[in-house]
Amino acid sequence: MNKKVLLFAGSLRTGSLNKKYVKVAHAILHEITGLDTELVDLADYPMPVYNQDIEDKEFPQPAADLARKVAGVDALVISTPENNGSIAAALKNTVDWLSRPPHNPWPGKCIFLMGASPGALGAVRGLWHSRIPFEALGCHVYPDMSGLPRAHEAFDENGELKDKASRERLAKQLKGFANRIF
Amino acid sequence: MNKKVLLFAGSLRTGSLNKKYVKVAHAILHEITGLDTELVDLADYPMPVYNQDIEDKEFPQPAADLARKVAGVDALVISTPENNGSIAAALKNTVDWLSRPPHNPWPGKCIFLMGASPGALGAVRGLWHSRIPFEALGCHVYPDMSGLPRAHEAFDENGELKDKASRERLAKQLKGFANRIF
Amino acid sequence: MNKKVLLFAGSLRTGSLNKKYVKVAHAILHEITGLDTELVDLADYPMPVYNQDIEDKEFPQPAADLARKVAGVDALVISTPENNGSIAAALKNTVDWLSRPPHNPWPGKCIFLMGASPGALGAVRGLWHSRIPFEALGCHVYPDMSGLPRAHEAFDENGELKDKASRERLAKQLKGFANRIF
Amino acid sequence: MNKKVLLFAGSLRTGSLNKKYVKVAHAILHEITGLDTELVDLADYPMPVYNQDIEDKEFPQPAADLARKVAGVDALVISTPENNGSIAAALKNTVDWLSRPPHNPWPGKCIFLMGASPGALGAVRGLWHSRIPFEALGCHVYPDMSGLPRAHEAFDENGELKDKASRERLAKQLKGFANRIF
Repeated sequence: MNKKVLLFAGSLRTGSLNKKYVKVAHAILHEITGLDTELVDLADYPMPVYNQDIEDKEFPQPAADLARKVAGVDALVISTPENNGSIAAALKNTVDWLSRPPHNPWPGKCIFLMGASPGALGAVRGLWHSRIPFEALGCHVYPDMSGLPRAHEAFDENGELKDKASRERLAKQLKGFANRIF
Repeated sequence: MNKKVLLFAGSLRTGSLNKKYVKVAHAILHEITGLDTELVDLADYPMPVYNQDIEDKEFPQPAADLARKVAGVDALVISTPENNGSIAAALKNTVDWLSRPPHNPWPGKCIFLMGASPGALGAVRGLWHSRIPFEALGCHVYPDMSGLPRAHEAFDENGELKDKASRERLAKQLKGFANRIF
Repeated sequence: MNKKVLLFAGSLRTGSLNKKYVKVAHAILHEITGLDTELVDLADYPMPVYNQDIEDKEFPQPAADLARKVAGVDALVISTPENNGSIAAALKNTVDWLSRPPHNPWPGKCIFLMGASPGALGAVRGLWHSRIPFEALGCHVYPDMSGLPRAHEAFDENGELKDKASRERLAKQLKGFANRIF
Repeated sequence: MNKKVLLFAGSLRTGSLNKKYVKVAHAILHEITGLDTELVDLADYPMPVYNQDIEDKEFPQPAADLARKVAGVDALVISTPENNGSIAAALKNTVDWLSRPPHNPWPGKCIFLMGASPGALGAVRGLWHSRIPFEALGCHVYPDMSGLPRAHEAFDENGELKDKASRERLAKQLKGFANRIF
């Protein structure tokens, strides 16, 4: 049976470099047999900043909807910005809302983290910081991660990576990840 | 000249244990001479989840207001929940909004982190995870942090810590911190 | 075919609480079918502090021997002390020596981390800090980890955990881990 | 009164890039008035891998000697390699030996971390991982750190940084640090 993979970027803005980067990953996963993939946009699941008072009154429907989507897959590929050397607020907020009972779909999911950044370090600090909440929730975060430095210059007008070696490296990582989805 | 200290909890909900805990810190700081303190509530500074599209259209006034407050102090005392073993979304979101130019008031601030948690570990994982964005922004995060385990049982009806030793330990930490505010 | 698991403690001293704790894990793994297990003692593989000058002259035989052992297994269970809130020097030194080419047996190994500590937090900070080098090396570190607080009072004279619930929790974690060995 | 600063590299090998990098820092600190500096070599303080059995028998004299040196200064500048994305074993081992009572000179020291690496990321992961034990010990680790990427090509035959901008950036960081030594 095919493994199901959900992809999204941990960014809300329309022109996000991470939305571009996760689209490349989506195209690559299409070339791997045995996978059913779906790419969603966090901006289509608007949530307030997590606040238990809101939760106690009424659980946000978009969070419940996205939790159901996560519950229905085996694995996730998430491309996330680095903000101040650490996890993006939009991603952390999404993780936390979805983790609330009775929804919590996270335990046991296989996760591949990637990150695009205009800087020279390719979001490496944000990627390592972002592993923690997923691991605390019982997710199997793939050890290898994919940082894309100087991402503002990395894509052509079709959204493809200009540098072929970068695309091949990502493809190799994603194939390795696909082999390790339970 | 007196040092100025801003205090808040990294939580939005009304009955937050961290709001209680930071109030205890506020009372203790009052007993230390040479400090001007102000306690604010993040819920009074409502912000959307960080999204550069919103920023490009109009910077949220509450974020600008809080950034001005932070810019006006020498130090901050922040009590933050641990969510999924890591930084609270409300705190990360606040840090990120305020860090955006031309506001960014963070570099050089002295910060004391504390955290109340119903669990046995006293938010220790969240505290260590929360240091990172502040340090990446150039803040001097005090090495010693104050975790309060089993916080749901820790306060009496007046909001005081029932356990005198816990209050004394916090007071000692805050005195050490106050001596290290530049 | 049976999965092979190597166990050791990240401590050198004879009376190490982590040597006791990993023995309990060894006994539990024996009860799980489909596993071949071997428990070794790092003290039997004496290595100098890592120094490339030594490596260039002659690679330490004990490090080469242990690297071969690690290369021959699918998974490792490592019980490690927390020293100064972080990874034990003996464990980091072992990881680094073994990682040197042409030996490096680490990539792809499945690892379960556990830690015994006399403190109340059960080595939780050391466990999270210890994940990093293994993940950087491409190991699949199991998200759930097992910290044993107040470990100096935890064992009876036969080396068994006095608290049955603690042993059951560890057994449950190790069964979960065993199911995830590739 | 002059502030005292001890400098060393977290590496043992003779030709260490970090020994070169910390020498540059030493020269820069000489240009700052009000500082007394001393540069030492960890290789002159040979220690076994930390083992409590050794400690119980006889505390290593080199560790006691270095602990006394650390106790006598206000601040340290440490240049450390990144090994497997994390703290160098030689540095962790030194920190742990010195931390043992009755020596423990670490609490309250001001520390500037720097790291040279042949890679493109300039030891950034190792630097962030290395903060933790120092902060757990109560050291004030300066938030800004100095990573030197492609360090194998960075020095001329006199041990100077070829790139003037890199030296100026380091000098600016060290001046900032010197202003924050208590």
